[in-house]
Amino acid sequence: MSDATVEKWGVFEASFDGPSGGNPYLDVAFDAVFTHKSREVRVPGFYDGNGTYRIRFMPDSEGEWSFLTRSRTAALDGKTGALTATVPSAGNHGPVRVRNKFHFAYADGTPFLSFGTTCYAWTHQPLEMQKQTLETLKKARFNKMRMGVFPKDYPYNVNEPLHACFERGADGKEDFDRPNPASFQHFEKQVAALCQLGIEADIIIFHPYDRWGYADMSAEQDFRYVEYLAARLAAYRNVWWSLANEYDFLIDTKPMEQWDRYFHILEENDPYQHLRSIHNGDVTANFDHRKPWVTHTCIQNPDVKRTQEWRDAYGKPVVNDEPEYEGDILQSWGNLNAQELVHRFWITMARGGYAGHGETYSHPEDLIWWAKGGELRGEAWKRIAFLRDLLEADVKHGLEPLGIIGEWPWSRVSGARDGDGDFRLIYFGEHQPVIWSTGLPVDGDDYDVDLIDTWEMTITPVEKVAAPVPHPTRHGSVVRGGKPDAAFGVKIPRKPYQALRVRRKR
Amino acid sequence: MSDATVEKWGVFEASFDGPSGGNPYLDVAFDAVFTHKSREVRVPGFYDGNGTYRIRFMPDSEGEWSFLTRSRTAALDGKTGALTATVPSAGNHGPVRVRNKFHFAYADGTPFLSFGTTCYAWTHQPLEMQKQTLETLKKARFNKMRMGVFPKDYPYNVNEPLHACFERGADGKEDFDRPNPASFQHFEKQVAALCQLGIEADIIIFHPYDRWGYADMSAEQDFRYVEYLAARLAAYRNVWWSLANEYDFLIDTKPMEQWDRYFHILEENDPYQHLRSIHNGDVTANFDHRKPWVTHTCIQNPDVKRTQEWRDAYGKPVVNDEPEYEGDILQSWGNLNAQELVHRFWITMARGGYAGHGETYSHPEDLIWWAKGGELRGEAWKRIAFLRDLLEADVKHGLEPLGIIGEWPWSRVSGARDGDGDFRLIYFGEHQPVIWSTGLPVDGDDYDVDLIDTWEMTITPVEKVAAPVPHPTRHGSVVRGGKPDAAFGVKIPRKPYQALRVRRKR
Repeated sequence: MSDATVEKWGVFEASFDGPSGGNPYLDVAFDAVFTHKSREVRVPGFYDGNGTYRIRFMPDSEGEWSFLTRSRTAALDGKTGALTATVPSAGNHGPVRVRNKFHFAYADGTPFLSFGTTCYAWTHQPLEMQKQTLETLKKARFNKMRMGVFPKDYPYNVNEPLHACFERGADGKEDFDRPNPASFQHFEKQVAALCQLGIEADIIIFHPYDRWGYADMSAEQDFRYVEYLAARLAAYRNVWWSLANEYDFLIDTKPMEQWDRYFHILEENDPYQHLRSIHNGDVTANFDHRKPWVTHTCIQNPDVKRTQEWRDAYGKPVVNDEPEYEGDILQSWGNLNAQELVHRFWITMARGGYAGHGETYSHPEDLIWWAKGGELRGEAWKRIAFLRDLLEADVKHGLEPLGIIGEWPWSRVSGARDGDGDFRLIYFGEHQPVIWSTGLPVDGDDYDVDLIDTWEMTITPVEKVAAPVPHPTRHGSVVRGGKPDAAFGVKIPRKPYQALRVRRKR
Repeated sequence: MSDATVEKWGVFEASFDGPSGGNPYLDVAFDAVFTHKSREVRVPGFYDGNGTYRIRFMPDSEGEWSFLTRSRTAALDGKTGALTATVPSAGNHGPVRVRNKFHFAYADGTPFLSFGTTCYAWTHQPLEMQKQTLETLKKARFNKMRMGVFPKDYPYNVNEPLHACFERGADGKEDFDRPNPASFQHFEKQVAALCQLGIEADIIIFHPYDRWGYADMSAEQDFRYVEYLAARLAAYRNVWWSLANEYDFLIDTKPMEQWDRYFHILEENDPYQHLRSIHNGDVTANFDHRKPWVTHTCIQNPDVKRTQEWRDAYGKPVVNDEPEYEGDILQSWGNLNAQELVHRFWITMARGGYAGHGETYSHPEDLIWWAKGGELRGEAWKRIAFLRDLLEADVKHGLEPLGIIGEWPWSRVSGARDGDGDFRLIYFGEHQPVIWSTGLPVDGDDYDVDLIDTWEMTITPVEKVAAPVPHPTRHGSVVRGGKPDAAFGVKIPRKPYQALRVRRKR
């Protein structure tokens, strides 16, 4: 028995010496079976260069675990070891899972309300800038980071990465059959750094913005690369798998069956079944997120009032990672004014989805947060932090839309409740009623109602009034209205970007 | 020959004495054939009470016209007369027609860019208020008014109309087989008053907001009523027929075939074939505007970025009469902030459609423009006037979208050109690029470009710069970019609601 200890949902690692000749990446396979009482968990291993092979394991139960390696390579076969998984430290809530159909929670039951941002290639920037990115993330309140494994070739992204992802052959070209351990070691170090900050790493496996050939690897090379990522990274509890950014821009070289196969490889090699999704480019090209191997819906779409439609279409949590970005660059997915991005966050959340942040202000040296990280220069991130704090104080189950699709008035304003309705959020956005009642509780006025100015970030108790009684309307043979639709109404100032927070008195 | 003269597109009227006993509305039919050279035009007549029958005719050619009446009622048969149609006076451009597939023009060829507003029941308010409405319209710059024939029963609309639309029987109930001449005489007087102001009357024939029984007349009564409207009103050149407001809220009592029949009755009885359309309630219930008897698409829909989609779906001009209203009432179709309504006007116009205005600010006596007219209290109408003046200065053919549906970047920003592109309009709205080139001319920089602040209503020449050359992007096998997409770029301030006006130097 070993005296190794690791906290529950921490990373246990064991390394072994093995062959370094030939191409271990192609020639050597090994895994380990971890055992806790009668339970067995298969964990794939990987080659980390210089004759070193590693197994990484994330125990999800406290107590004694032992393992036994398996390989046709004698040096890696039949190795044994043990560890004790201890109580998780403060801030370690385990990996995030889907809960309540449309929402997420950490493994320990803590709700996870996704407030993501995007720095596609931050791990490929100069180290000083990566440090700055982590410093910025400490003060921002994002809890998810979309980031690519591969570097990025794109407008404002022309610098070379820190590391080639694959080793160079004698011809100077990268050999896609030989991962460069230095590159992946660095990548996982930053995944771990995010974990320390309580930030989920939404790892983008493929993307089309490429001049190195990574987007054009063969299917077999892709499959091995996905398997390799699973073996290296799955033990980090903050990993989410994003199969691609804008997969539809790669569909000419990676047909649809291949995308399904990537998902299956993760299912086969990620012992913890981290969250898996895939992100479209064109708004008409959403992946079929109903497929059982997709855990949640990832999209980019500026038309955030459709959030409920996507919930219904796929029956899974909706993460709209790109409702366009705050910025001022030429590309119109990246020149949204800050108020509009905050507006889109509120609409998305108040319709039962999750939005993502990105920032694309032009910069003389092209140091733009959305791809490189560094510093935040905009205004939306502070308001998104405010929204996160506001919701985390109350939301336990996940926000559910107050109306069904098309139902009055929820196609125009946005409203949601948590659980049985002891917490409600109504967001008016571009609407400015001076009296409101629809969606407020019908079971009495035993509620506190606060006015939220989503831009000014203020929370103020509202004045309650009698619920208005509109003159009835006749629509065909149906007579509607003529009675109040809630137990009380509230007064609201006549300006945009206001919201209501309704909480049952405790 | 008569010495009657009437200007081309003016109203010629002839009256005849006939039977007043029984029910002339049901029992007596008569029409006239108007003849100009070899051309014959059939014009239906109508009963106007007190034994008086009238024929109204709008000559559309200058010169001599004669007529001959036809009826099985002897007193109305074989009557003859004549008129001379003279040159139209200044401001008389004739009726509005569809031109260039997606646009409108007056009969004399003057482009008609629709800038409508809505006062559903203004002709049913106290006379002093109707006078005020006309005064307000003199200073506003709207050129179309949506208005119902029938009064309105709805929230904020509980007062009795000036006139019952039908005569009351001995039981005090209105008899839907006896139109009240006083009511229709007043209505047409106000149609004529709008005509004097250069405003098209978009006449709503049916609507569901009713406590008088008008929405529940029998099919036969409906058919006669539509025929009656055509006979009374078609000679006013500013008439547009809107079969219904929110027809889908009446579909339980008026099935779809009936709506088609109303259209056919207008085709059969309106000699001038005024514009005909019909307006939905629910955003999922657009009428099938492809039907050949529908001249243009009328909808209500807040999702104005879909304008091009509706153009494509129906192949006709798109008039989005209700992209929600500026106001602050409880109902969320009527509490939009002013900037958002102006924003939706710009988006709609810069995507090749036409938007409509309404104003719904709560008022202690419920005097709200949208239904009753009176005074405008908001901020949008001034900006809409500014937009109208700006476009009328240059648009000759009608604005056509710069991109096809989904094409980069026109799903996000809005852009359109007039004719061959000597005039272009690009509207950024919630987007705020500091440099822009997409959609600007590719054939040299022989253009004046002005920055429009759509809210501040300022027009300022922009600074031209070299067109930006973005780093190429690879999407699958397609490499895009790497060269400028226009002959020049322009600098834009970083704020929302900006637009560009591009005009070839003259």
